[in-house]
Amino acid sequence: MPLVVQKFGGTSVANIERISRVAQRVAKTYDQGNDVIVILSAMSGVTDGLIELAHKAAEEPDKRELDALLATGEQTTAALLAIMLKSMGYQAQSLLGHQAEVVTDSDYGNARILEIGAKRLKHLIDRKNIVVVAGFQGYDIKGNITTLGRGGSDTSAVAIAAAVNADVCEIFTDVDGVYTADPNVCPKARKLKTITYDEMLNMASLGAKVLQIRSVGFAKKYNIPVHVRSSFNEEEGTMVVNEDSGMEQLLVSGVTHDKKQARVTLIKVPDQPGIAANIFSPISEAGILVDMIIQNTRKGGKTDMTFTVPKGDFKRTMEITKKVALQIGAEEVLGDTDIAMVSVVGVGMKNHSGVASVMFNTLARENINILMIGTSEIRISCVIEEKYTELAVRVLHTAFGLDAEE
Amino acid sequence: MPLVVQKFGGTSVANIERISRVAQRVAKTYDQGNDVIVILSAMSGVTDGLIELAHKAAEEPDKRELDALLATGEQTTAALLAIMLKSMGYQAQSLLGHQAEVVTDSDYGNARILEIGAKRLKHLIDRKNIVVVAGFQGYDIKGNITTLGRGGSDTSAVAIAAAVNADVCEIFTDVDGVYTADPNVCPKARKLKTITYDEMLNMASLGAKVLQIRSVGFAKKYNIPVHVRSSFNEEEGTMVVNEDSGMEQLLVSGVTHDKKQARVTLIKVPDQPGIAANIFSPISEAGILVDMIIQNTRKGGKTDMTFTVPKGDFKRTMEITKKVALQIGAEEVLGDTDIAMVSVVGVGMKNHSGVASVMFNTLARENINILMIGTSEIRISCVIEEKYTELAVRVLHTAFGLDAEE
Repeated sequence: MPLVVQKFGGTSVANIERISRVAQRVAKTYDQGNDVIVILSAMSGVTDGLIELAHKAAEEPDKRELDALLATGEQTTAALLAIMLKSMGYQAQSLLGHQAEVVTDSDYGNARILEIGAKRLKHLIDRKNIVVVAGFQGYDIKGNITTLGRGGSDTSAVAIAAAVNADVCEIFTDVDGVYTADPNVCPKARKLKTITYDEMLNMASLGAKVLQIRSVGFAKKYNIPVHVRSSFNEEEGTMVVNEDSGMEQLLVSGVTHDKKQARVTLIKVPDQPGIAANIFSPISEAGILVDMIIQNTRKGGKTDMTFTVPKGDFKRTMEITKKVALQIGAEEVLGDTDIAMVSVVGVGMKNHSGVASVMFNTLARENINILMIGTSEIRISCVIEEKYTELAVRVLHTAFGLDAEE
Repeated sequence: MPLVVQKFGGTSVANIERISRVAQRVAKTYDQGNDVIVILSAMSGVTDGLIELAHKAAEEPDKRELDALLATGEQTTAALLAIMLKSMGYQAQSLLGHQAEVVTDSDYGNARILEIGAKRLKHLIDRKNIVVVAGFQGYDIKGNITTLGRGGSDTSAVAIAAAVNADVCEIFTDVDGVYTADPNVCPKARKLKTITYDEMLNMASLGAKVLQIRSVGFAKKYNIPVHVRSSFNEEEGTMVVNEDSGMEQLLVSGVTHDKKQARVTLIKVPDQPGIAANIFSPISEAGILVDMIIQNTRKGGKTDMTFTVPKGDFKRTMEITKKVALQIGAEEVLGDTDIAMVSVVGVGMKNHSGVASVMFNTLARENINILMIGTSEIRISCVIEEKYTELAVRVLHTAFGLDAEE
């Protein structure tokens, strides 16, 4: 009998009416002859509300205690869904993180899953129960409650799917799949039937926020097919799968954009060993996430160093960087928040050198100046002026043959 | 070093400001050189809100799942208090029911504590932590979350105090102790310095609602001194202790009243074996709690049977009883909701036969008719017409020498 893991996010369980719709959907899947494990997030807004409450209690709430507090959100929705399923006549049972044996490290607020025992989970499934697991939470070996960080329920779902060897992990969300570009920006964007784990890894971090990035890594490692689909309709969404499954082989699978980054440049940095560490250690110690880093070579033992950080951290980053610049003898620090990053992503480009030139030429034709370039094996990203974002996405989408047919 | 268990109820932790006051109080106790374990209830209203939510999810919510849902209330307050204490510079840690090893049976919603491991609790106390335990909750041997029923945090507190061999269990509440009568009814009522477990057992069930009745049984069994005191001031409250502690030996310790009962009488019931079972089995199966039962002897093999039930269950009880009356051939069923029960309680009356006659004479002098009489070893209760309740309490209070000095 097929074993399906279904994960529903915060907007899908935002109130009793929506939880009731989830119950219908879960029941239908079960009635179709599947074993079903459900992973739930907290009602949308609840986690933020609890964080706010904790910050009223203390300026910097203790992390262990904050996790114990936050875990109540998923405990609530899991219990409520189990209550509904039982009242509909189904055998159902909720399990909290520790009851589902989701063992994590002790990095409160951002814990990593070490293993999932799932003994009880399997036992319940063998006895035809629908099991409802509170997502986002686990426990460390000492029995402390931990949480997995923002969007952690996706990771819970994929990890549990891996532990029980599920046939598919369905992620229900408020979009109906992964698109070739943001449809709000690019009207010709179309839904992908399939996408590879690697493409998702490169898409997710760039702004096509349908899946927590860590969950994709998990899915790839254990080769769990992930089905991203809408909780509001019955349509097929997008399957995230391994590359060698028979799938459409596009050169480029999608164009993504990200307006949430700011750019910082150090001018004329002495080009010597250890200098990068001098710059980025204090930034990382301040908890600021650096995304792209570019180092240009200059003449005369000096180099320019440019990097991007979230816009919200821009001011702090500038302060830190200016201090560092003095220490290391850099000439100047420049900053810019009016930028955006556009990227093209696709496993097809692995063995194809032409993608970069198509991208650069396409942008050039529109007189869009490229401020920074970064690449990974299956992604090319350009930082441009923010005002050109939408135009850039649309022309790249057309250039790589992604436009939906009229 | 003295080990103090402090329990704070829902009104004491109703919001962040009040939790902050609790934190101050706990810190003060710790600073005075005590080891401190804190037991918390959920914020007032939260448990009821969750029950309401569950009833929106299903008409009859599954009991296991309801307990998992309700347990979030105490988890929230425990984490918030620990967050505050830590931010104030104290070593503090919250523990949930299963983390504090509160093992119960599987009677969801009304579970009984079987044992408390308390290994981790003791470990933390040995290392000078203030431990904040979520009250009201435990877990069964299969690892399911259970709750202890209304007011269960009192029982949590006393049971944990027993498990760690605490010197005292302080119950903080919105009254400042146990009074000889309800001060709202009897202006001359005064606060008792001490009261015995047995007296509390007889008081609590009769309406002086300061402690969950089960917690008193626990305290008695393990001989835990319980200090009932106000969370709003620093005054000494009332110590609930064993009889043989040197204490004021009053004939009667208090006068209580209860207006929440209704009376049902079956007239001319055939007086034969098994008849009481015929009457009370269907009532108990309907989940209705019968309090006092009186059976009068009549002539001719017929008897009258009178009993009291909560007013809220009166209508249902009448329906059930009328059906039963037909089956067993009773003549008539009478019902009355305009009644009240007044009781005098005191260990002193154990070896003193005069209490009953003083009570009856006192009521007679005011022309208060006694409708039913019931007694326990240390209590005499009379059911009277409701309108005389306040008068009865005051004259009995005076008659037994309980009035505060002017």
